[in-house]
Amino acid sequence: MPALDLTRTSVELTADLVDVFSVSGSETELADLVEQALRPHTHLEVLRDGDAVIARTNLGRARRAVIAGHLDTVPVNDNLPSRLDGDGILWGRGTVDMKGGCAVLLKLAAELTDPAVDVTWVWYDNEEVAAELNGLGRVSRTRPDWLAADFAILAEPTDAEIEGGCNGTLRAEIRTRGRRAHSARAWAGDNAIHKAAPVLALLAAYEARTVEVDGLAYREGLSAVGISGGVAGNVVPDEAVVTVNYRFAPDKTGGDAEAYIRELFADYDLRITDLADGARPGLDDPLAQAFVASVGSAARPKYGWTDVARFAALGIPAVNYGPGDPALAHADDERVPVEQIERVEAGLRTWLTS
Amino acid sequence: MPALDLTRTSVELTADLVDVFSVSGSETELADLVEQALRPHTHLEVLRDGDAVIARTNLGRARRAVIAGHLDTVPVNDNLPSRLDGDGILWGRGTVDMKGGCAVLLKLAAELTDPAVDVTWVWYDNEEVAAELNGLGRVSRTRPDWLAADFAILAEPTDAEIEGGCNGTLRAEIRTRGRRAHSARAWAGDNAIHKAAPVLALLAAYEARTVEVDGLAYREGLSAVGISGGVAGNVVPDEAVVTVNYRFAPDKTGGDAEAYIRELFADYDLRITDLADGARPGLDDPLAQAFVASVGSAARPKYGWTDVARFAALGIPAVNYGPGDPALAHADDERVPVEQIERVEAGLRTWLTS
Repeated sequence: MPALDLTRTSVELTADLVDVFSVSGSETELADLVEQALRPHTHLEVLRDGDAVIARTNLGRARRAVIAGHLDTVPVNDNLPSRLDGDGILWGRGTVDMKGGCAVLLKLAAELTDPAVDVTWVWYDNEEVAAELNGLGRVSRTRPDWLAADFAILAEPTDAEIEGGCNGTLRAEIRTRGRRAHSARAWAGDNAIHKAAPVLALLAAYEARTVEVDGLAYREGLSAVGISGGVAGNVVPDEAVVTVNYRFAPDKTGGDAEAYIRELFADYDLRITDLADGARPGLDDPLAQAFVASVGSAARPKYGWTDVARFAALGIPAVNYGPGDPALAHADDERVPVEQIERVEAGLRTWLTS
Repeated sequence: MPALDLTRTSVELTADLVDVFSVSGSETELADLVEQALRPHTHLEVLRDGDAVIARTNLGRARRAVIAGHLDTVPVNDNLPSRLDGDGILWGRGTVDMKGGCAVLLKLAAELTDPAVDVTWVWYDNEEVAAELNGLGRVSRTRPDWLAADFAILAEPTDAEIEGGCNGTLRAEIRTRGRRAHSARAWAGDNAIHKAAPVLALLAAYEARTVEVDGLAYREGLSAVGISGGVAGNVVPDEAVVTVNYRFAPDKTGGDAEAYIRELFADYDLRITDLADGARPGLDDPLAQAFVASVGSAARPKYGWTDVARFAALGIPAVNYGPGDPALAHADDERVPVEQIERVEAGLRTWLTS
């Protein structure tokens, strides 16, 4: 693979990054290319942890921003190499999630030798797989000082808009129990699937809150995302499991959310299988307000959970800002309008040079 | 394997049959032994179809009974060879389902050279697997004349009581549909699992009929036997499937049962996946009444579907009568009190010699 040329446009650089295969767990080649491209830039201190690369200015500014993107992608499905069509759309795995953002960060890291705030640029690994493998999580546990900052921007696809914070997410298994019997003598058993009726009725009737946090309106949701039960075609089943996913506004902690769900399903055996705090948008910070002003459009709430919550857990307010439609993030026809890549580059550049 | 000795007691003969491995599809060795043991008995015409063996008297009696048992078993699970304990319990795969019955039939076929009615004795294959493989079904399609009779007894385990006819059985998949969305934006989707709430509520509230047919009270049942749905932990699912099993009294045909279930779930996409008519007990026939009198206890209804329905489909009223507790039929600790084997032998012998 040829070295990355950071003098190319951010759109060209996006295509270059997309064309280096980097499905989660296979990021080393791309991380090496990123590190090698940054090393010559003497205004940057370049650090490496596994397949995460960090480059930071040390200009003694009063304030510091961390700006991050992940290098890995979900599996490729006949959608590489990248292809730029005549309508200014760049197609291919990773164009949205999130090599467009990574390319902008690389270009600006190299070019902005004298930014208005100190910047810690981060490219990390394993965002698309199990949380315990997440490269940003690893660095935040083992090298929290590398991430120290007053404000964070994560280049998640947002259609080039600022999306503040994120909702938290909780998953729980709600289990009903009964007694097995041959279905020819159903009265001898106690049907656990039938007992799930009120659980589903509660979910069907549930009205989710919309909550304002730091000026943004967060809409919640409570959904069954799975249901299973049954032993065989002639057996009254003794167990059924409904898996629910609760997306909660960042005014609640994970603990609040768990207590709420436990109370809602108090009559049932409930096990929490996954719980991640949300993140407040932190848009009351003057640094954040200056960024919003530079981008020039109002911030929106982020509904999906993203790694901004890892910054929030370090006490760093964080927003999402990157090119691409999040609904196309893992789609086989993943594609980004190059205009959005250029717009995100301009937004960050304006803020960091003003 | 040594030849079967039909002069041994029916209990000893049960152990001999149990000790010949005959999981469905592997019945040839046992069928060969049965055929070879019967061939020397000149009062019997011995017929063979695949691994089914038929032996019949041709005494010109006014009436004929068919008495049948299946040679195959469900898979062995460390429960062979057979073992007779000190309390008169014979343990092992097939002791209940249904080599005790097969042994009684073999012994009586050999000994009763002059029965009161002509008898067609049947030992068949593949009862424990897919219906299309069933040996009795095969013979009834290809050689219905071999099964011609006025009354049928099937040696299914009934704790040595007469259980008349059987309920029918219908399975259906009830499908709800919605629209996928990311669960972080649940309002953009339409949750198919939530839509299954009224299906489960209907099942939970359902009150099954009890119906008298030919003097026996058949209890029905409607059970969810399976439920599934879900795409991933962060996706509002677009489909859920509830599988129900309806056990219907033999006053309904399969067609009646299907119409009833389609009306009950008229609001849903419903697909019938399995449907088998039940069987009337036919206990109004004098031949059946004489049999009940010989056994000496009142007949009960059979709830589970059995191959008596195959006789019913040929126009032959049929009852179940065999040693063993049906609840132990497929259990790893399958076992039969030898007293029940002896009782079934005596019941059939009394009837056929009176």
